[in-house]
Amino acid sequence: MGLVVQKYGGSSVADAEGIKRVAKRIVEAKKNGNQVVVVVSAMGDTTDELIDLAERVSPMPAGREFDMLLTAGERISMALLAMAIKNLGHEAQSFTGSQAGVITDSVHNKARIIDVTPGRIRESLDKGNIAIVAGFQGVSQDKKDITTLGRGGSDTTAVALAAALDAEVCEIYTDVDGVFTADPRVVKKAKKIDWISFEDMLELAASGSKVLLHRCVEYARRYNIPIHVRSSFSGLQGTWVSSEPIGDKKVEQAIISGVAHDTSEAKITVVGVPDKPGEAAAIFRAIADAEINIDMVVQNVSAASTGLTDISFTLPKTEGRKAIDALEKSRSGIGFDSLRYDDQIGKISLVGAGMKTNPGVTASFFEALSDAGVNIELISTSEIRISVVTRKDDVPEAVRAVHTAFGLDSDTDEAVVYGGTGR
Amino acid sequence: MGLVVQKYGGSSVADAEGIKRVAKRIVEAKKNGNQVVVVVSAMGDTTDELIDLAERVSPMPAGREFDMLLTAGERISMALLAMAIKNLGHEAQSFTGSQAGVITDSVHNKARIIDVTPGRIRESLDKGNIAIVAGFQGVSQDKKDITTLGRGGSDTTAVALAAALDAEVCEIYTDVDGVFTADPRVVKKAKKIDWISFEDMLELAASGSKVLLHRCVEYARRYNIPIHVRSSFSGLQGTWVSSEPIGDKKVEQAIISGVAHDTSEAKITVVGVPDKPGEAAAIFRAIADAEINIDMVVQNVSAASTGLTDISFTLPKTEGRKAIDALEKSRSGIGFDSLRYDDQIGKISLVGAGMKTNPGVTASFFEALSDAGVNIELISTSEIRISVVTRKDDVPEAVRAVHTAFGLDSDTDEAVVYGGTGR
Repeated sequence: MGLVVQKYGGSSVADAEGIKRVAKRIVEAKKNGNQVVVVVSAMGDTTDELIDLAERVSPMPAGREFDMLLTAGERISMALLAMAIKNLGHEAQSFTGSQAGVITDSVHNKARIIDVTPGRIRESLDKGNIAIVAGFQGVSQDKKDITTLGRGGSDTTAVALAAALDAEVCEIYTDVDGVFTADPRVVKKAKKIDWISFEDMLELAASGSKVLLHRCVEYARRYNIPIHVRSSFSGLQGTWVSSEPIGDKKVEQAIISGVAHDTSEAKITVVGVPDKPGEAAAIFRAIADAEINIDMVVQNVSAASTGLTDISFTLPKTEGRKAIDALEKSRSGIGFDSLRYDDQIGKISLVGAGMKTNPGVTASFFEALSDAGVNIELISTSEIRISVVTRKDDVPEAVRAVHTAFGLDSDTDEAVVYGGTGR
Repeated sequence: MGLVVQKYGGSSVADAEGIKRVAKRIVEAKKNGNQVVVVVSAMGDTTDELIDLAERVSPMPAGREFDMLLTAGERISMALLAMAIKNLGHEAQSFTGSQAGVITDSVHNKARIIDVTPGRIRESLDKGNIAIVAGFQGVSQDKKDITTLGRGGSDTTAVALAAALDAEVCEIYTDVDGVFTADPRVVKKAKKIDWISFEDMLELAASGSKVLLHRCVEYARRYNIPIHVRSSFSGLQGTWVSSEPIGDKKVEQAIISGVAHDTSEAKITVVGVPDKPGEAAAIFRAIADAEINIDMVVQNVSAASTGLTDISFTLPKTEGRKAIDALEKSRSGIGFDSLRYDDQIGKISLVGAGMKTNPGVTASFFEALSDAGVNIELISTSEIRISVVTRKDDVPEAVRAVHTAFGLDSDTDEAVVYGGTGR
């Protein structure tokens, strides 16, 4: 008998009907002879409503109390889901993150899982129960306080539990049929990917694909837990994410897995930086001290006449204000002329392990963009990814052009988007 | 420095504004030099909305999951309240029932508190924090499952914490100014009671007064914790409930504390019961086996010619169906002619320790009812209470008549009802 971990997002359990539909699917998995652990997110917009309430009470909600507040959402959905399963004649027990043994550090609002001790879950499964676990939450090791795992935390809960319970698979149910070769809302002819390696999935996630978050894939790779991303609205097979293709499916690794895009970043250019050792370090130390994660970095060739250079980097738009403030504060120490802030940019990335052995990929990528009339502003590459920054308005056209150029287009418009945003 | 436990009901924290108002009041108590522990209910109608969701998912929600669901309500209100207090520049920490050390038995939906170990609360107070505790919930001793305490559970949480922390007072904030000599919605001239003994308060609660529940008062009496019932909407002194009048207030004990009424009961009459030993026992064994609590019991004088008698008793309307079924099932064993069910009854009770030493009270009570043209169907008495059952429609008039007859009427219409039902 296998052990399966299933995760259902907020759009799958948005209302009583959704909960009942999901309950039926869970019972099916149980009837198929599996032990079943289910991780569930808060219903629909519950979390947003709680955040809104918090903001009305206090402009800067405190970490510990904010986590206590948000975790109420998953308690509601998990209890309702357990009731719905019992109503179908099967035994189910719900567990909070703490009860499920999800132990985290004490960084409220974005805690990291440091251990999973699922003794109570194992016990419940051994009694024949279906175990329902609140996603997105844990308990801090030192203070025994309730913590939340931040964005995409329920996916991480599911993968962490799958690892701790040595599950056969972690199924992530969402409102799309799987991972596609591009965002189906932009590319009508995007194809569902049957299988993708952890490495390619990590690059896609880092490049703006929103189906799975980087952190969750990273966790799955470390413990070698196959992920099956699929829709809770259809019965279709979705996308398998694993180190090797699963079972008798001999899927050949594609040269290119997909095209991702990201319009959530902004670009800051530090203009007129003295071209001498230590200057770049001073800039990025100021940014790091403000706890801002940056993405791409480019330094222009220095103009010999002036001895000055420009340094550009990209970062989440939400961190823009903070970064500008941090740089202005360190201006005298660093020494630069001015700062330029640009949030009208977009990033397009081509991801695929085949790149390593196909030297023509980079050239074809740039040709496709050029043919589509898209100007490139920044370039960054890894072993299995090429990313460029363009004007934000050029992104949809650029993605479609690249998708077509690499032969990723489907013969039909197969992509279906069922509901909300699914997180 | 004193330690004060305050409890705020759902109507006091119905929205963000209510939470901010309550936060200010809590901070006042802290500024006055007290250590402050706050017990809070779920916001407004949250609990009812969760119950409604549960019913849409499953017609018979299971105990353990139902408790998990309902406790989400208090987690939301307590976290928001802690945020609002911090926003006023004071330190606050919120605690679930489990974190606060509220240990219960395992009877889901109506668990009993068996121990309170408020180590974390004490620690938080000693650091100068205001401690916010989720009312209505605890954790079961044996299984470590989340439990709820049933109706009025937040009041019980407050009193139990006050006892465990050796508090000076347990303040119960609600949407009325205190305990009145009668329900102000029925008797415009009802007076606020300044002080009432535990014993009289217990009888009032048992007789239908809804401001404090019997269980909470019983707990306070056992541990001798003074309760101060007052409004969270006004700054007025409310009603003190304690063994002796508090402080320099030399309040003389009134002969009559108040008039309570209850229209939530029904009457069942078992007709044609053989008048021989063991018959009544068989009837009430059948009722007890169905876990139904009954209130008043009356047996008519047997008619000598038939050797048959009638037995009537009252019970909560909500248990009516179950009681009839239990009796029908035991019909052959008991032997009776028929059952009569009547839910158009009401109970009026006169409560006061002075009754013991004032023999005329009973007579005056019956005279007042008679003068008001109210027919009495059943009578039951305790040392400090007389209760009668009448037609439901007669209740308001009967309560007013008795209230006037015993000189309880205020010179003015002082009673103010601020908000919802306040539980």
